[in-house]
Amino acid sequence: MTRKELIENIRRKQSFLCVGLDTDIRKLPAHLQNEPDAIVKFNRAIIDATAPYCVAYKPNLAFYESLGVEGWKALEDTVKYIREKYPDQFIIADAKRGDIGNTSQLYARSFFEHLGVDSITVAPYMGRDSVTPFLGYEGKWVILLALTSNPGSHDFQLMTDENGKRLFEEVLTKSAEWAGPEEMMYVVGATQGRMFEDIRRYAPKSFLLVPGVGAQGGSLEEVCRYGMIPGECGLLVNSSRGIIYASSGTDFAEAAGREARKLAEQMATLLR
Amino acid sequence: MTRKELIENIRRKQSFLCVGLDTDIRKLPAHLQNEPDAIVKFNRAIIDATAPYCVAYKPNLAFYESLGVEGWKALEDTVKYIREKYPDQFIIADAKRGDIGNTSQLYARSFFEHLGVDSITVAPYMGRDSVTPFLGYEGKWVILLALTSNPGSHDFQLMTDENGKRLFEEVLTKSAEWAGPEEMMYVVGATQGRMFEDIRRYAPKSFLLVPGVGAQGGSLEEVCRYGMIPGECGLLVNSSRGIIYASSGTDFAEAAGREARKLAEQMATLLR
Repeated sequence: MTRKELIENIRRKQSFLCVGLDTDIRKLPAHLQNEPDAIVKFNRAIIDATAPYCVAYKPNLAFYESLGVEGWKALEDTVKYIREKYPDQFIIADAKRGDIGNTSQLYARSFFEHLGVDSITVAPYMGRDSVTPFLGYEGKWVILLALTSNPGSHDFQLMTDENGKRLFEEVLTKSAEWAGPEEMMYVVGATQGRMFEDIRRYAPKSFLLVPGVGAQGGSLEEVCRYGMIPGECGLLVNSSRGIIYASSGTDFAEAAGREARKLAEQMATLLR
Repeated sequence: MTRKELIENIRRKQSFLCVGLDTDIRKLPAHLQNEPDAIVKFNRAIIDATAPYCVAYKPNLAFYESLGVEGWKALEDTVKYIREKYPDQFIIADAKRGDIGNTSQLYARSFFEHLGVDSITVAPYMGRDSVTPFLGYEGKWVILLALTSNPGSHDFQLMTDENGKRLFEEVLTKSAEWAGPEEMMYVVGATQGRMFEDIRRYAPKSFLLVPGVGAQGGSLEEVCRYGMIPGECGLLVNSSRGIIYASSGTDFAEAAGREARKLAEQMATLLR
């Protein structure tokens, strides 16, 4: 998907919501627990209920990998389902990969060609040759970790060099030499508040993937006040647990749809 | 496996070799290419041929993930094979994971409980709560990226703070507060030469996992001169492509055994 198409989808749906498919087998509604393909069934119902209100889905790979072979199969089935039924949804493999060049190349092929997602989250620690193998796939994106939503984000990401530049700013600066805002986005946690201003100084045109609204305590209003690009939005705000576990009963999909709609309505107001 | 057991294995075998199982389906010997379970067959033969000369195996997850469901099955089968036939081998899942707390927890369970490896490589960018969920499993290890072997290692890992301390040194310092040398190792690339002296200033007792000998151009002698802990070794030196692709003919396993033995003989000299 191109940047232009993504912006059009956001404009049309009046939403920049990304639904995080962090599907935990132990948290599924009781009536699904013992069904075969419980995860895929759960995901399909969640997707059908939320698709009108969001523009992206983000399965976090850990939840699928933790189930081994079966989990991988569930992930493949889920991606295929979205791809076929809702081709205008942007799919993010939240994998936080990054390895030496020949290995990153394999990951890129695995995620973009085999699995068929639109984008993958990548960790920047290993530098240029761990990131660039993910670039150059038409319509595919790298989403680089910049300033994450968790408490540990302060341990290294805020380290300051001799000139007062912080590590996450160094990541934004250097990575801008590798790719432009047509194929690179950044992860910035919703819990970072006014730091979005600093992010925008270095990445004025880049889309930001923003986790941390909801369960982690970030504020949607703050994110938009400091991070939104007028006319282009430039944000994909993710909610996972707040949507997919809104109810643990047989009405889980309906409840998820309701929560997604609530967020989309707030977003529509903020987009004006 | 405890630190003491690992040191005993190194002493007994007079080797600190780790064989990297970066098994690429496209590089398998022609006679295996069309067999079912080609990867597992290849790995088993490599393992049988090299086990006398090494103390550890390191499958890099990218190679298995790139094959989707089948790849995961091959990885599980390979780990099981090593575990049952060679219980004294230390198994490293080279995964370079790291995510917010609840997700890292899932990864830890996935790798330590489900897959059953001894250790996993973890990327430090997201800080404390992305690393600590991997700790506290008896006999299990975190291997944290510190100073990697690739050219991109210079992009961020050498960033210097106001006091002249570099990012990789900050990673060594902070992570030492999270875990001691009984359950944390560090990745340091063989291509880093004298930088091993700097590493040892911050991590005098820690085991180092050292990739980059062979195909990437690192020198075993240099690594040992600047990085070895007298009497305890403190190194696991990895070779992947140089061993497993030593021959592309029907003698691939024999050739791999020969290369592993060559390295082990050099190591025996360096251990004296």
